Amino acid sequence: MVGPCFVSFFFLVNLLSFSQTLDASHCSIKGFPLVKNISELPQGNYGRGGLSHMTVAGSLLHGLKEVEVWLQTFAPGSHTPIHRHSCEEVFVVLKGSGTLYLASSSYKYPGKPEEHFIFSNSTFHIPVNDVHQVWNTNEHEDLQMLAIISRPPVKVFIYEDWFMPHTAAKLKFPYYWDEQCLQETQKDEL
Amino acid sequence: MVGPCFVSFFFLVNLLSFSQTLDASHCSIKGFPLVKNISELPQGNYGRGGLSHMTVAGSLLHGLKEVEVWLQTFAPGSHTPIHRHSCEEVFVVLKGSGTLYLASSSYKYPGKPEEHFIFSNSTFHIPVNDVHQVWNTNEHEDLQMLAIISRPPVKVFIYEDWFMPHTAAKLKFPYYWDEQCLQETQKDEL
Repeated sequence: MVGPCFVSFFFLVNLLSFSQTLDASHCSIKGFPLVKNISELPQGNYGRGGLSHMTVAGSLLHGLKEVEVWLQTFAPGSHTPIHRHSCEEVFVVLKGSGTLYLASSSYKYPGKPEEHFIFSNSTFHIPVNDVHQVWNTNEHEDLQMLAIISRPPVKVFIYEDWFMPHTAAKLKFPYYWDEQCLQETQKDEL
Repeated sequence: MVGPCFVSFFFLVNLLSFSQTLDASHCSIKGFPLVKNISELPQGNYGRGGLSHMTVAGSLLHGLKEVEVWLQTFAPGSHTPIHRHSCEEVFVVLKGSGTLYLASSSYKYPGKPEEHFIFSNSTFHIPVNDVHQVWNTNEHEDLQMLAIISRPPVKVFIYEDWFMPHTAAKLKFPYYWDEQCLQETQKDEL
């Protein structure tokens, strides 16, 4: 009943390369139809080398208030910052493998994190406010994941290392939306 | 940078067939590790012919409170009921094609719905309480989607047709969790 492997979704995603970062136009995709072709959505790296980020369904972009969905691809060796956020986050790993580092928010600072191997066709979730980092530790392949968050737009607290006190983590808001875009959106809404 | 098409995720999902409905065991998957292999998650059809439903990340199953993620596969000709729910829902179409029927909740009854073609690598979202139905209208291929909802567990109001008053729609709660499982869960929690 379930047919042969499904190439088309990823084939289309693959048509996008990191070089296609849409610096100027990724703020304004208003007017898209209800059903959107993911391969036509803007892609950016938001200042992080090796990252491709696409907002598949977003709060500022598409008016969602309770969930947001991202498609993120990490080149070998690239990673998220060490960070936490006051929302739930679910990952579905579509391709590649890597390492999840996870630490509780119950103490004064995160401390040495747990390490979890993540792999294609796996899923995991990050409890609210737990400190975490995802690395593509596979030298040979991109790590591609769908990330789903609650309470968008996300406000991220970023750590320089695992022994930095929680109170010293720096707020970046919204994480995947640069200030220029935010200002443009606010202007549009006036 | 983004490599060849990503077969492994779907290859593993394909290993599961509709015949593997886990009637007795799908209630209890406690003890799963943080990182879960999607191909090892329980699969059910919850009384709907042609449906395969997997809860990738769930409220009752995994303790999530704000988002829930499902992997659903519809055989050709199969479909969801006409329904609404008081939460946001985002779909990512992984494979196949079909039709989304969508009607507003602003009038006494849904009325004739809008029709939208949905296709592999597309995404769309359902506004809170809008009445909708997804059909696999492609005779030749399964329709496979990730569905993401807020405010789990979902409480679904089901309509017999598009001209049934909203007040007559029947509540089914939780939709993808049968009563036997709910009772078992409640017993476990005592």
